[in-house]
Amino acid sequence: MAENSIELDFLAGVRVVDFTQFEAGPSCTEALAWLGAEVVKIENPKIGDPGRRLRSGQPDDDPYYFHMFNANKKSITINLKSPRGLEIAKDLLRQADICVENMAPGTIERLGLGYKDVKAINSGIIFCQIKGFGSGSPYEKNLAFDMIAQATGGTISVTGERGRQPVKPGVSLGDTGTGMTMAISILGALRKRDKTGEGCQLQVAMQDAMLHYMRTNFSTQAKFGTAVERDGTRSGGGTNGPSGLYPCAPGGLNDYVWIMTSRGNAEHWSRLCKVMDREELINDPRFVTPALRVKNDAELDPMISAWTKRHTKHEAMALVGGAGIPAGAVLDTMELQNEPSFVERGIMQTMEHPTHGGFKMPAWPVRVNGKPPKVTASPILGQHTADVLQSWLGLSDADVQKLQDDGVL
Amino acid sequence: MAENSIELDFLAGVRVVDFTQFEAGPSCTEALAWLGAEVVKIENPKIGDPGRRLRSGQPDDDPYYFHMFNANKKSITINLKSPRGLEIAKDLLRQADICVENMAPGTIERLGLGYKDVKAINSGIIFCQIKGFGSGSPYEKNLAFDMIAQATGGTISVTGERGRQPVKPGVSLGDTGTGMTMAISILGALRKRDKTGEGCQLQVAMQDAMLHYMRTNFSTQAKFGTAVERDGTRSGGGTNGPSGLYPCAPGGLNDYVWIMTSRGNAEHWSRLCKVMDREELINDPRFVTPALRVKNDAELDPMISAWTKRHTKHEAMALVGGAGIPAGAVLDTMELQNEPSFVERGIMQTMEHPTHGGFKMPAWPVRVNGKPPKVTASPILGQHTADVLQSWLGLSDADVQKLQDDGVL
Repeated sequence: MAENSIELDFLAGVRVVDFTQFEAGPSCTEALAWLGAEVVKIENPKIGDPGRRLRSGQPDDDPYYFHMFNANKKSITINLKSPRGLEIAKDLLRQADICVENMAPGTIERLGLGYKDVKAINSGIIFCQIKGFGSGSPYEKNLAFDMIAQATGGTISVTGERGRQPVKPGVSLGDTGTGMTMAISILGALRKRDKTGEGCQLQVAMQDAMLHYMRTNFSTQAKFGTAVERDGTRSGGGTNGPSGLYPCAPGGLNDYVWIMTSRGNAEHWSRLCKVMDREELINDPRFVTPALRVKNDAELDPMISAWTKRHTKHEAMALVGGAGIPAGAVLDTMELQNEPSFVERGIMQTMEHPTHGGFKMPAWPVRVNGKPPKVTASPILGQHTADVLQSWLGLSDADVQKLQDDGVL
Repeated sequence: MAENSIELDFLAGVRVVDFTQFEAGPSCTEALAWLGAEVVKIENPKIGDPGRRLRSGQPDDDPYYFHMFNANKKSITINLKSPRGLEIAKDLLRQADICVENMAPGTIERLGLGYKDVKAINSGIIFCQIKGFGSGSPYEKNLAFDMIAQATGGTISVTGERGRQPVKPGVSLGDTGTGMTMAISILGALRKRDKTGEGCQLQVAMQDAMLHYMRTNFSTQAKFGTAVERDGTRSGGGTNGPSGLYPCAPGGLNDYVWIMTSRGNAEHWSRLCKVMDREELINDPRFVTPALRVKNDAELDPMISAWTKRHTKHEAMALVGGAGIPAGAVLDTMELQNEPSFVERGIMQTMEHPTHGGFKMPAWPVRVNGKPPKVTASPILGQHTADVLQSWLGLSDADVQKLQDDGVL
């Protein structure tokens, strides 16, 4: 349809049985769906993925969240607590390359669909589990959502203003950040499976995955020997100066620009002085090295702020960034939503959904020969039940109808 | 060595020519290295990846950061500005499956190693570029580091305390978050290349990749119609209550616990009241629904805090989490560093480095049949020059020596 996206076929023919819900699991299988895998969500016939309904009592009323993590997938309904439903799930797993689940600890095993059961019927399957805490952790039986992973994985401790209470990073890294690591391991495992026929069990814990995103913090700790303190308006490590958030006109909640002068490139500092028309500062003894600029930031920052406050964040970014100094305006979600460049480049695309109409959302950000993969609608609950049971298992329309009448699907 | 890790061979035989530096690029190729690819860093003979030396003037003095993003890789030195060096780089690219670079915009093309040049000598290569801004963006020529991507990609705008200035999430999501999306696309592209012989160009911009991690924020914006405001001590969306950070004994900077009661599970609230020995609150008309608990949080929060302040964060997590309510203590980097469970489970491993000794760091968090991949030392600058030029290109020791004498390597 749109010329700025493509139907991506990297994973053409790869079959994924997707038992995931909410975000940590769906963000993983969504990545596979963007790349062209056939991702089939198995949902319970009554309400489906609870991520479909984030305001209880109002059916199917928060489709936005669901769209975000389930575009390009299929949905079938199966009552896994009925013996025949369980049998159908196993038949699908026999045909699958990959199975992913993120149910509460122990749930899938109690259903009779744990790795041992599934491996017995499909030894080549890549069986993937995402939990809050790792098996063997003191908290392995505990429930977790994004914020719990971010608390116990360290990302909250390093986020916030210096000396004040911690805050949760505004992004759901505990969920999607974890999903990304699992997607990578799945695709690695698939290459080995393609060559050897050998499957495996993959497991990731959201708490553990946070450490992966905290590596820079751990390296800072190794350098200084103490726990990393949050200092969210400055660059960490205290060796780049000036580097931080500066206020801009007209003074709104997000009217800030981040300006970063790297100690690795002395030109950044002199260019910044020129942009501000303060060339006399370049060789000012208080500011002549990066270390001195960090040390004397109480004197330097007001000079920079005095300049940034005379400009909007967009002007400041254009002037500073245009002069070859890393600079970025703090953009809010509405500014990003309305930025035409994202649409032109296919980074934001509009999902045409049969019941919810058009919905503009971020597509997969990696472009292939210049174009990102095309978004297609997230599935209506059970939309592909007949399609998948026919194409994967050879069931007839009548078979499907009977199973639906019997409450199995 | 350690029984809690394995030599992972998912990508055995896959050859990666790695021109990356700092973190956005190295975090991507590091993921491939964990999965068993042969990742060869091409570094300039003088200083190598600038990520090796994050305090200028003190050679090789910040190995921690470098270790984090370059474990399990090889390093060779080539002077790409010498004609013979460029020729050797091309010879390596002829043998490669994947090439990844994150130089400043236009740099690799000026070196004569852009996609057109490389495709001409290896049509099956997967050629990957990570930049701050996308080609076609108004800022495509601008420089970017992590914080610039986080400013312009929205993550800073949604992070911080309600009503106060924004802060940067303490994790380097602009770098590693971007690297993860590229690693996923690379592995998808590799599957197609294995089947068809066809390579491709993959490109990702750090700003664009941030939108991928902001999908929950965009769905919140879609629901309410306004830009998402930061509120970093509460769950977003305002529909789960209570859910937020509560202060614990003895009142230190990170003595907090996140307690999350989901509107999707009424038991969470009643369990919490029981844990606090406040069963009379369960049916208190002020707090009887999630919406009322959010509305009346000014009355409710002090009651919860009064309880949490009587416990350490670890006690609070054990009591609340143990009662089946999602709960997480805010752990700092030192607490995570010293947590024995991470070592027992192979999530934290010690790199044995020939010059820097033992270094404990997070390993790849996804476990394969119960074990994560084993960490091996990050390479000394040029450590594998002879090894790789011999095994990939058939050069002799004498050839390598001569090239070194000539300043090519």
